[in-house]
Amino acid sequence: MWGGRFAEGPSAIMREINASIPFDKALWREDIAGSRAHVAMLARQGIVSEADAAAIDKGLAQIAEEYEADGVAEDWDLEDIHMTVEARLTEIVGPVAGRLHTARSRNDQVATDFRMWVRSANRRAIAGIDAVLHALVARADEHADTIMPGFTHLQTAQPVTLGHHLLAYFEMLARDRSRFADALERMDECPLGSAALAGTGFDLDREMIAQALDFARPTCNSLDAVSDRDFALDYLMAASQCALHLSRLAEEFIIWASQPFGFVKLPDTLSTGSSIMPQKRNPDAAELVRGHAGRVIGCTTALMVTMKGLPLAYSKDMQDDKPPVFEAAGLMDLSLAAMAGMVADSGFDKARMRKAAEAGHATATDLADWLVRQADIPFREAHHITGAAVKLADEKGVALDGLAIEDLKAIDSRIDERVFDALSIDASVAARASYGGTAPERVREQVEDARKRLEKF
Amino acid sequence: MWGGRFAEGPSAIMREINASIPFDKALWREDIAGSRAHVAMLARQGIVSEADAAAIDKGLAQIAEEYEADGVAEDWDLEDIHMTVEARLTEIVGPVAGRLHTARSRNDQVATDFRMWVRSANRRAIAGIDAVLHALVARADEHADTIMPGFTHLQTAQPVTLGHHLLAYFEMLARDRSRFADALERMDECPLGSAALAGTGFDLDREMIAQALDFARPTCNSLDAVSDRDFALDYLMAASQCALHLSRLAEEFIIWASQPFGFVKLPDTLSTGSSIMPQKRNPDAAELVRGHAGRVIGCTTALMVTMKGLPLAYSKDMQDDKPPVFEAAGLMDLSLAAMAGMVADSGFDKARMRKAAEAGHATATDLADWLVRQADIPFREAHHITGAAVKLADEKGVALDGLAIEDLKAIDSRIDERVFDALSIDASVAARASYGGTAPERVREQVEDARKRLEKF
Amino acid sequence: MWGGRFAEGPSAIMREINASIPFDKALWREDIAGSRAHVAMLARQGIVSEADAAAIDKGLAQIAEEYEADGVAEDWDLEDIHMTVEARLTEIVGPVAGRLHTARSRNDQVATDFRMWVRSANRRAIAGIDAVLHALVARADEHADTIMPGFTHLQTAQPVTLGHHLLAYFEMLARDRSRFADALERMDECPLGSAALAGTGFDLDREMIAQALDFARPTCNSLDAVSDRDFALDYLMAASQCALHLSRLAEEFIIWASQPFGFVKLPDTLSTGSSIMPQKRNPDAAELVRGHAGRVIGCTTALMVTMKGLPLAYSKDMQDDKPPVFEAAGLMDLSLAAMAGMVADSGFDKARMRKAAEAGHATATDLADWLVRQADIPFREAHHITGAAVKLADEKGVALDGLAIEDLKAIDSRIDERVFDALSIDASVAARASYGGTAPERVREQVEDARKRLEKF
Amino acid sequence: MWGGRFAEGPSAIMREINASIPFDKALWREDIAGSRAHVAMLARQGIVSEADAAAIDKGLAQIAEEYEADGVAEDWDLEDIHMTVEARLTEIVGPVAGRLHTARSRNDQVATDFRMWVRSANRRAIAGIDAVLHALVARADEHADTIMPGFTHLQTAQPVTLGHHLLAYFEMLARDRSRFADALERMDECPLGSAALAGTGFDLDREMIAQALDFARPTCNSLDAVSDRDFALDYLMAASQCALHLSRLAEEFIIWASQPFGFVKLPDTLSTGSSIMPQKRNPDAAELVRGHAGRVIGCTTALMVTMKGLPLAYSKDMQDDKPPVFEAAGLMDLSLAAMAGMVADSGFDKARMRKAAEAGHATATDLADWLVRQADIPFREAHHITGAAVKLADEKGVALDGLAIEDLKAIDSRIDERVFDALSIDASVAARASYGGTAPERVREQVEDARKRLEKF
Repeated sequence: MWGGRFAEGPSAIMREINASIPFDKALWREDIAGSRAHVAMLARQGIVSEADAAAIDKGLAQIAEEYEADGVAEDWDLEDIHMTVEARLTEIVGPVAGRLHTARSRNDQVATDFRMWVRSANRRAIAGIDAVLHALVARADEHADTIMPGFTHLQTAQPVTLGHHLLAYFEMLARDRSRFADALERMDECPLGSAALAGTGFDLDREMIAQALDFARPTCNSLDAVSDRDFALDYLMAASQCALHLSRLAEEFIIWASQPFGFVKLPDTLSTGSSIMPQKRNPDAAELVRGHAGRVIGCTTALMVTMKGLPLAYSKDMQDDKPPVFEAAGLMDLSLAAMAGMVADSGFDKARMRKAAEAGHATATDLADWLVRQADIPFREAHHITGAAVKLADEKGVALDGLAIEDLKAIDSRIDERVFDALSIDASVAARASYGGTAPERVREQVEDARKRLEKF
Repeated sequence: MWGGRFAEGPSAIMREINASIPFDKALWREDIAGSRAHVAMLARQGIVSEADAAAIDKGLAQIAEEYEADGVAEDWDLEDIHMTVEARLTEIVGPVAGRLHTARSRNDQVATDFRMWVRSANRRAIAGIDAVLHALVARADEHADTIMPGFTHLQTAQPVTLGHHLLAYFEMLARDRSRFADALERMDECPLGSAALAGTGFDLDREMIAQALDFARPTCNSLDAVSDRDFALDYLMAASQCALHLSRLAEEFIIWASQPFGFVKLPDTLSTGSSIMPQKRNPDAAELVRGHAGRVIGCTTALMVTMKGLPLAYSKDMQDDKPPVFEAAGLMDLSLAAMAGMVADSGFDKARMRKAAEAGHATATDLADWLVRQADIPFREAHHITGAAVKLADEKGVALDGLAIEDLKAIDSRIDERVFDALSIDASVAARASYGGTAPERVREQVEDARKRLEKF
Repeated sequence: MWGGRFAEGPSAIMREINASIPFDKALWREDIAGSRAHVAMLARQGIVSEADAAAIDKGLAQIAEEYEADGVAEDWDLEDIHMTVEARLTEIVGPVAGRLHTARSRNDQVATDFRMWVRSANRRAIAGIDAVLHALVARADEHADTIMPGFTHLQTAQPVTLGHHLLAYFEMLARDRSRFADALERMDECPLGSAALAGTGFDLDREMIAQALDFARPTCNSLDAVSDRDFALDYLMAASQCALHLSRLAEEFIIWASQPFGFVKLPDTLSTGSSIMPQKRNPDAAELVRGHAGRVIGCTTALMVTMKGLPLAYSKDMQDDKPPVFEAAGLMDLSLAAMAGMVADSGFDKARMRKAAEAGHATATDLADWLVRQADIPFREAHHITGAAVKLADEKGVALDGLAIEDLKAIDSRIDERVFDALSIDASVAARASYGGTAPERVREQVEDARKRLEKF
Repeated sequence: MWGGRFAEGPSAIMREINASIPFDKALWREDIAGSRAHVAMLARQGIVSEADAAAIDKGLAQIAEEYEADGVAEDWDLEDIHMTVEARLTEIVGPVAGRLHTARSRNDQVATDFRMWVRSANRRAIAGIDAVLHALVARADEHADTIMPGFTHLQTAQPVTLGHHLLAYFEMLARDRSRFADALERMDECPLGSAALAGTGFDLDREMIAQALDFARPTCNSLDAVSDRDFALDYLMAASQCALHLSRLAEEFIIWASQPFGFVKLPDTLSTGSSIMPQKRNPDAAELVRGHAGRVIGCTTALMVTMKGLPLAYSKDMQDDKPPVFEAAGLMDLSLAAMAGMVADSGFDKARMRKAAEAGHATATDLADWLVRQADIPFREAHHITGAAVKLADEKGVALDGLAIEDLKAIDSRIDERVFDALSIDASVAARASYGGTAPERVREQVEDARKRLEKF
């Protein structure tokens, strides 16, 4: 295949370092689809005869069937999926196969194949996110008034509702969804027809190919088209942020499932036992989702570093674009599916959550706010008074609403009995009814709103 | 400020690790603007009196003037810009200052301040990109028919036009621009009013604050609002891809400016000499742009790792969000400005470029394509014949079009004299007139198109 | 300083992108020390006169005093600390200052200065680690028999001792220490005298300079000496691993300090309250240490990416070596100090730890092991029997040792009363006396061993 | 295998996310070796009978033969290589197989297996480096006096020798070698016997196992032993630095192989042609080595992020330790082999290198140095005079030594004819004879020294 120029065959090391077939065989569907669209256009433009095109198309269809049935054989001498397909085509249709590569180069061919693959990965990510979003909304609805401690610094801060907490992840994942959608829109251009780097002298109809491969339009600069891997980075970056969000939710499930918390019982199907400690119920799936965030970020780093400082146009370094994307996409598909299951099937222990919310003087802010409202005290002063009350409650070993009114009055005489209405966790949660707040009525509104957004997606 | 609970003062180490004022003082404009919007809303809602609000607003205006004139003093005991401003406000207006923090927490306050800062950074990035885009289009127009070698693998591949090459970067940077624009749209929500994590019991008008601070709407989940740093990652990721593109252009300028290439003379203003080798004309600005890609990617990595696995809501880890963003934004501002200057002011040596394009049998593909078209030979066979011709030219030490017609006929009898029309670099460039191709007529169309896109931005 | 060749002055953008003085002024001590060693050597070799050398040395000493007192002024026109010092020297001693740069280039000068700075950072890291190691050993000794739950997957697995747990971090940090020590040894070579890239024609005594600056030997290849930043990466990589270990310990402190765990009360000096929730005791220092791991890793990534693919010798990209190292070193100094304080001063709640260890059937493995030993049952079968016992205990809502002997016998008739000796957490911990195990006697041995290792460091 | 507790089987998603057998089957040799050592020790200590141990050992030997012949079958229900081996063992030897896991957990088992694998990877890296080092020394010897341009900023700076340039990489790779050696020493401790996390109550002889598996000693804290992946990070970090060095050499080969440079003809076996441009001689192997640096750095990032913030002891996240290490090790093995071939077999075009060295006034420093030495002019003034001379030469379009003596005298009257002795590139190179300098005599000394170091390795 190298023309007549290289007397020596490639050495063993070269065979191995150069061969991309072990991973790029994953592109076989895209490669064959791209070739079929290409040869159809060549025929329409009169660049190859209709008969030759038909023979090639039939051969390609046969190869697709073979690969579907038996997979793609790895012959390192054929280097990559493009040469593998063409070699098989030659076996089937003879020298006419050599007409397929007219007005095309591996540079635009691989850019097109890979872009189509990444497009599919984006679509799968969006579908995976949608599954998690639906699960989140359903559970948030169910737990719109389930009280749990809200944490900052993992310290009990204020009571919140579980529904509210779950909807925070709805927001994160909805943003992730929009990133994959933005990426899809940006990559919606077809490189095929850019040839090696400079375009071609053949009279192509690039609009026709673009449409055949479901792209909005052809790329408009051939040098960029073969040098560009932004679409892969767009996928990886959207995946990285999504993986980070999932890692946060996973961390929470892991902490919540620990014995001292005991907020959640993870689904049997997504937990495991231990080979030496049979009583264990390990949150493996959550841990793997959290761990996968590292690998997805590693994949993103890999491609960024590989692309850094590459002069135009195609450089072979860019062959290292695929393994990180393939790996990250596999991890994302699994992570999203696992997290959808975890959200949908976990059991929440409402009693333990409520009990935890009652600890830690979580309604201290409510006392401070009460002082501001009832006694018109500047917030900072109210804050200081509240601090003294909390200190006293700590010393007495009681909750804030377990203090006697006399004790409270001793701290500040403007406090009266009405304060106790503000100090229960139910009152606290119900009070936080500002837009976006944790009050059950707000959460139910958010659930409705989320459902509407899901319908529009 | 810690309430009455902590007997011990923070130790020296805590003072230092905890103080964010050394870097977050950069947020003073946003902090004061946010506080003014907040107190105006509190007054409108009757939560603070008009008189108190007016006093606070006046005090804040005075602080803004002081900072504008003298900068922000760093008092580590005040920890951060928020406490620094409030402490100064208390000096100016007395205890009434304590009303400003009503229905607010540092958590939503910093989320809002930082988001506004990042919004500005996005806008500066877009402006910086626009300057580079304009420079690229102008130079592409000027060099629509300047011939240079097109490289793949940094090997001379096919002749291209410099205009075409520069427009490849137009495409890259236009995509970068769209990323910053997407980021702006996604971050167009105001967190203020989310309070510590759960919303607040005060009757806020969050729409009013959002409008006052030029956001499209308030955030709709308070837990998410204080836990979210997606907007910072969106900026950093857009910046990373943009920095990668700039690193590629920088690499090309550096290689082109080397003596063996000699394609470009960089602007005096963006080059330096050497302390020991006075004849040197070092492409410092290009190298720094290339090097900065590393730091921008490092900043992105930093924030991703910091956010990994953080449970909701605010954790102090998130204080480490600002240094990477501030650093990356400074580097991006400089890199874009430097690259705009480099593109606008560099001198291209057309003669050396043309000479280089003539080397390396860069029109070999044209020979293969000619064989396909004129002799209806399958491309793969034409490719093989061309390989033999190139080998012969190499052995004879001549260019491909320096071979005698007899030599060519000896290789393949279907070749005739007309082939020489295809083998000049001018013919080669002119022939590549497919959409997106390098032919001067296509480049001029692309220039026109680019100008129209710039107008619409 | 650019010789007579550049008619135009550097533009504003170039001034800013090119100026390293804002950060490299941190190198002033090293720069002056390097220059004094250099001029002393030049004088000894007769390359400058003794009188000139004395004048230069005196001037440099004066500059050091000035900087010590007043800091280094930033004049961007002077670009970097090297030119800043030389310019001041010229003011003090006149044109003879121009002799200092004989047989030297900024390339070897900055390589030497920066290496000395990084050497100091390594030494500080080792000292910081030693402080943590001492604290760990002291607390491990104190808590050699304090029982806590040992976790895997954050699930209660087996009881362990707190001393054992703390000594696990001793091992991690001792490895970190060895990495910094390895780095110190590897960087113990002096680049000065390598000049711009090729060495110099002056008859230098590089051994003399190396000794004066406390290096073991001069570097042995001048091209490598000015192109190498391995020493900086060695520091950053050792720092990254150390930061990861600290992030794990920080995560544990944060989880242990949460209300549901309640294992630890962090020192007042390393916690903070909240502006809106005065009862909070936030583990800020621990969170910042955990967050800093992200930034340290970001710094490492930054320098790796910047160095990728740089041809020899010095490229200006390498000016981006210092900010990440300076930043990481500052973060490491603080993180190690904070963690030493956290380990030394935290209060552990032994009762809560013990209670948690009793939950979760943490002695299930002990039952399985008992079956193996007493009844000679293959481990896998014993494991299965234990699983049934745990299931039954769960159903009855009792601990494993709360099951009646009849119940146990019903599961497997080979179980007898002696089994209860194995099922208490004290028995469990005492039994694990294999080398490296958690038994108090082993922990005390480990403490002794650790003390001996510390003495040898 | 999960005991009797989980009614539901793991779902499809769990099967897939949880199964590590697709990648950890690479550990089969280590797993079987570890098990054989373990059972031999159990027998010696009387924990299992000699007969049982012999049966188990024989069964394991048989499995090793099977895997050697046929590979490891992937049964996802068996999850990982450890369960796969044990399941096969049970088929072969029956229930006695259940005794193998006595006093062991998968946690210490996998830590041991993986550590042995990484140890091998370190050794392969050292062997691969040694091959490159030998090639570098041989070529440096051959080209000790081959003159080429020395670059800074990719600008011709001063003439150097190719031998000197190649030896710069000897230094880099020798440092890499020392990093892998340090890593080997640090990981030379055997975790087996640490059990799940706390050690075991069985009376183990951990020294015996450590020796059997060729470790210097057992790990001394069981919690650390199962939680530690430092050894993997040590490998990855050493690999990252090595990959960066290789990326720099690869970049140079790529630039040198470009037509405008033409310094090097890469070996046929490590280059390829192009499918559309048969005349191309693409430096694919060099590009892949450069690109691989990105992926190796990505792998390092992946594991760092995954380990961040993990509480003790084993968490399932740590299952994500293997893919990045396996990937990086494969890339390093190939990169080192390819680079050894590239160094050994490339052809250098001495004439083109020499010609390039003569361009660019590369001996300007020599003129400045001459002025210092002959006319006792301070270096900075000499530098300024040289700048004027270079400017004049540029204007006249001649090399520096092409200026007439009158022209030089007009610039500074202290210049005389002897200056021309300093201005040839041969004189320049010969003059730089300081220790570590580029003079051929120094290079030959360095070659000798390098050979001695290689012998000692």
